[in-house]
Amino acid sequence: MEKELKGACIIGQSGGPTAVINASAYGVIRTALDTDCITKVYGAAHGIKGVLDDKLYIMDEEDPHELELLKNTPSSELGSVRYKIADPEKDDTDYKRILEIFKKYDVRYFFYNGGNDSMDTCEKISRYMKNVGYECRVIGVPKTVDNDLFGTDHCPGFGSAAKYIATSCMEVSKDARVYDKGMITVVEIMGRHAGWLAGSAALASYCGSGPDLVYLPEVDFNYEKFCEDVISIYKKQGNVLVAVSEGIHDAQGRFISEYGSTTAQQKDAFGHAQLGGLAVQLADELKKRTGAKVRGIELSLLQRCASHLASKVDVDEAVLAGKKAVEAAVKGESGKMVAFERKYVNGKYTCRTKLLPLNSVANFEKKVPLEWINKEGNNVTKEFIDYAMPLIQGQPKREVENSLPRYARLKKIVAK
Amino acid sequence: MEKELKGACIIGQSGGPTAVINASAYGVIRTALDTDCITKVYGAAHGIKGVLDDKLYIMDEEDPHELELLKNTPSSELGSVRYKIADPEKDDTDYKRILEIFKKYDVRYFFYNGGNDSMDTCEKISRYMKNVGYECRVIGVPKTVDNDLFGTDHCPGFGSAAKYIATSCMEVSKDARVYDKGMITVVEIMGRHAGWLAGSAALASYCGSGPDLVYLPEVDFNYEKFCEDVISIYKKQGNVLVAVSEGIHDAQGRFISEYGSTTAQQKDAFGHAQLGGLAVQLADELKKRTGAKVRGIELSLLQRCASHLASKVDVDEAVLAGKKAVEAAVKGESGKMVAFERKYVNGKYTCRTKLLPLNSVANFEKKVPLEWINKEGNNVTKEFIDYAMPLIQGQPKREVENSLPRYARLKKIVAK
Repeated sequence: MEKELKGACIIGQSGGPTAVINASAYGVIRTALDTDCITKVYGAAHGIKGVLDDKLYIMDEEDPHELELLKNTPSSELGSVRYKIADPEKDDTDYKRILEIFKKYDVRYFFYNGGNDSMDTCEKISRYMKNVGYECRVIGVPKTVDNDLFGTDHCPGFGSAAKYIATSCMEVSKDARVYDKGMITVVEIMGRHAGWLAGSAALASYCGSGPDLVYLPEVDFNYEKFCEDVISIYKKQGNVLVAVSEGIHDAQGRFISEYGSTTAQQKDAFGHAQLGGLAVQLADELKKRTGAKVRGIELSLLQRCASHLASKVDVDEAVLAGKKAVEAAVKGESGKMVAFERKYVNGKYTCRTKLLPLNSVANFEKKVPLEWINKEGNNVTKEFIDYAMPLIQGQPKREVENSLPRYARLKKIVAK
Repeated sequence: MEKELKGACIIGQSGGPTAVINASAYGVIRTALDTDCITKVYGAAHGIKGVLDDKLYIMDEEDPHELELLKNTPSSELGSVRYKIADPEKDDTDYKRILEIFKKYDVRYFFYNGGNDSMDTCEKISRYMKNVGYECRVIGVPKTVDNDLFGTDHCPGFGSAAKYIATSCMEVSKDARVYDKGMITVVEIMGRHAGWLAGSAALASYCGSGPDLVYLPEVDFNYEKFCEDVISIYKKQGNVLVAVSEGIHDAQGRFISEYGSTTAQQKDAFGHAQLGGLAVQLADELKKRTGAKVRGIELSLLQRCASHLASKVDVDEAVLAGKKAVEAAVKGESGKMVAFERKYVNGKYTCRTKLLPLNSVANFEKKVPLEWINKEGNNVTKEFIDYAMPLIQGQPKREVENSLPRYARLKKIVAK
C-alpha cells in the first residue's frame, strides 16, 4: 500500500449520456466524501472543459439525499463535453492549464467517467502528470451504452439501454402486428461499430414478442439479402418487425444510412459521423417492393437516457464502479480504468471489478463475437441472450413526483 | 329496467392500439363472464373483420390469470382492423353477414372498443340491428391516445400515452442539454388534428425538465415565427428542446410535414394521411439557420403502446369503461358509448361514467380549447396541466418475466 495521499478530487463526465452515468458519479462522490484523505470533492462542469474553465462545483455542499437521487437521474448531471484533447507530447497547452487548476485546488485525485474517447483523455492526463512529476492519481470510470469498451465484460449504461430496447421492441412488436397483414416495421438502434444494443432487441423475441430479424454492424450488410429476408417473412406472416443497428454497412464499409442521405451528414468533435434516418430509408425501400404499410422507428436519444427503465444490476454496478475507482486511487493506483469481470456462482450471475491500464483500453473497440451471430447474419444466437440477459435484471427503487421521475436537484455551487 | 336479455356477447377492438385498450377488453370480458344472462363471451379476431370472417375466440376458455394480464398488455390483443363499413342504407352486404353471424352464435350483446371511426361502425351496426328488428344491445367502449373523442372528459389510452410522452421528454430534456451549447432537439408527437398528446410534453417542463416550446395543431403554424422562437431561446441558453404535434399545419391547412416530403404519402383505409418525418425536417431547417447540432426524434408507435409506463388511473378507468359497458347493456341500454365525467371531491380528482348516444360522438373531434394555449401559440397554459396531470397518476402493478414485461398469453380457441 502506497503512502496516504491527502488532497482534493475532481470527478468529470464526458461523452454521450447514459441512464446510469450519474450513478457512477454518485459512487465516486459518495465514496470520496466518506474518505478522510480526500479533503474536498469537486465536480467539473462539462468534463475536462470545466477544469480548463475553472468551473468546479463543490460536491461537499450538496444535500446527501439529492446526491442519492443521482442514481436515477439520466444523462450527465455535471454536464458533458466532446472535446478532443491534444497529445501532450505535441501540444501541452491544455495540460499546463489543467496542472494549474489541479495545483490551485490541491487536486490529487482525478476521476473521469466516460467511454472510449474519455479513457483516451484520462490516459493522456495521467501520462502528463506523471511526466511533470505532479502526484495525482487518475482513474477512469467506464460508461457507454454501446458496450464497446475493451477489456471489460460489459459496461455501465449498456444493461439499462438494452432493457429499454428490449422492452420497447416487445411493445412495438405487439403494436406492429395488431393488423392481420400489410405492415412492416423497422426499428433503428444505436451502435456505430458494435451491435451490442441492436442485438439486445432479440431479448424481446426470446421473451415472446420481438423482432423477426436483427442486423448487426459486425456482419457486412447485403441490401438484396435483407429485402429477401424481410419479404419472405412478410409473405408468411403478413407483418414483419426488423431491428437494425445504425452502423450497418456494406462490404465496402459504406454505411447504409448514407445510401439515400438527403440531409447533410453531421460529424461530432471526434470526427464520428452522426448517423440516423436509416429506419425510414429501409422502410421506404420495403414499401416500394411490397406495397406494405411501413414504419421506420428510430429509438434515438430515448434509448440511452431511459432511466425509468434502468436495470437494477446496471445501476448497482455503475455505483460500484465509481466506488471502486475511489478506493483504488486511495490505495495508490493510477492510470487505470475500473473494469468488470463476470462470474457465475452456483449458476447465478455475479460481477466483480478489476483494474486495467488505461492505455490498454483507450481507442480499442469491443465488438460482438461473430460466433454470437447466426449463420444467416440476421439474428443473434442463444450465447448473446445468455450474455445480455443478466445485465437487464431488476427494477431499482426510483423516486417520483406527480408520478413523473424526480431527478436530483443539485445546487452546483461553483468553487472560487 | 328492461326485461333480461339472454344471449352471447362479442367484444371487438378496432383502430390504432393504445397501452390500455386491452384493459377495457378485460373489463368487458371479465364482467361478461361474471354476468348470468350473458351465455358466452366471444372475442372477434381483428374487430368487425372477425365477425365478417366468422373468426371468434371463445373467451370462456381462457385462463383467468392470463385474462387479468390483459390489463398490462399493450396493443389490441384480439387484433385490430381499419375497415370502413358502408352506410347500411347504401350497402347492407356487410350488415347481412353480421346479422347472420349474430344469429349463428345467438349474439345479443355487441361491444366495440375503439376511437372515432369505431364508434361510427358501432353506431351503424346498432342502427341496422334496430331497423331489421334483431334484438342486440350495442355499446361503444372508447379508446384513443389522441383524446379527441367528443363528449367524454377524456379517453382511455390518453393518460398512459401522456405519461410516456412526459417521462420521455423529461429524459430527453436531460440528454439534449448535456452539452453547454450547440444543440437543438425537436420531438414529434402524435395527434393529427388535436394537440392533447403534444401538450402533454409540457407536463415534463412543469416538473422541471421538459421542452421549452410546444406547438399544437389547434393553432396555425407559422414557420418563420417558429424559427424565431427557437433561435431566440437558442441564443440565450445554447440548447433548445421543442415538442411539435405531427398535425401542425399552416394557415392554408397544409401539413408542415408535407412541406419537404420525400417519401410517398401513405394513407390509411379511412383516407387519413400517415404523417411523420416532421421532426427531422424542422431540425434540418434549424440546423441551416443556426449551425447547431440537431436531433429530430419521432416518438412514433412507442408513445401509444408503452404499457410499461401506463398510468394506474388510466388502466383502472379503462377497465371501468369496459365493465360499465356490459352493465349498461344488461340493464337494457343500446346505441350508446360509455363516457367519462370528471369531478373534484375535496380537491381530489375522481371520475365517473355516463352514457352518450353513439350518433352524438361518432365523427366529431374534440380539440384542445384555445384558452389552454398561450398567446404566443408556443405552449399550453396551467389549465392544460391541471387537466392532464390527474390522468397520468399511479403505477399499476405489472408482472415481469426476466425483468421484461409478461403479457397475456391467450389460447384464442376459435368458435366452430
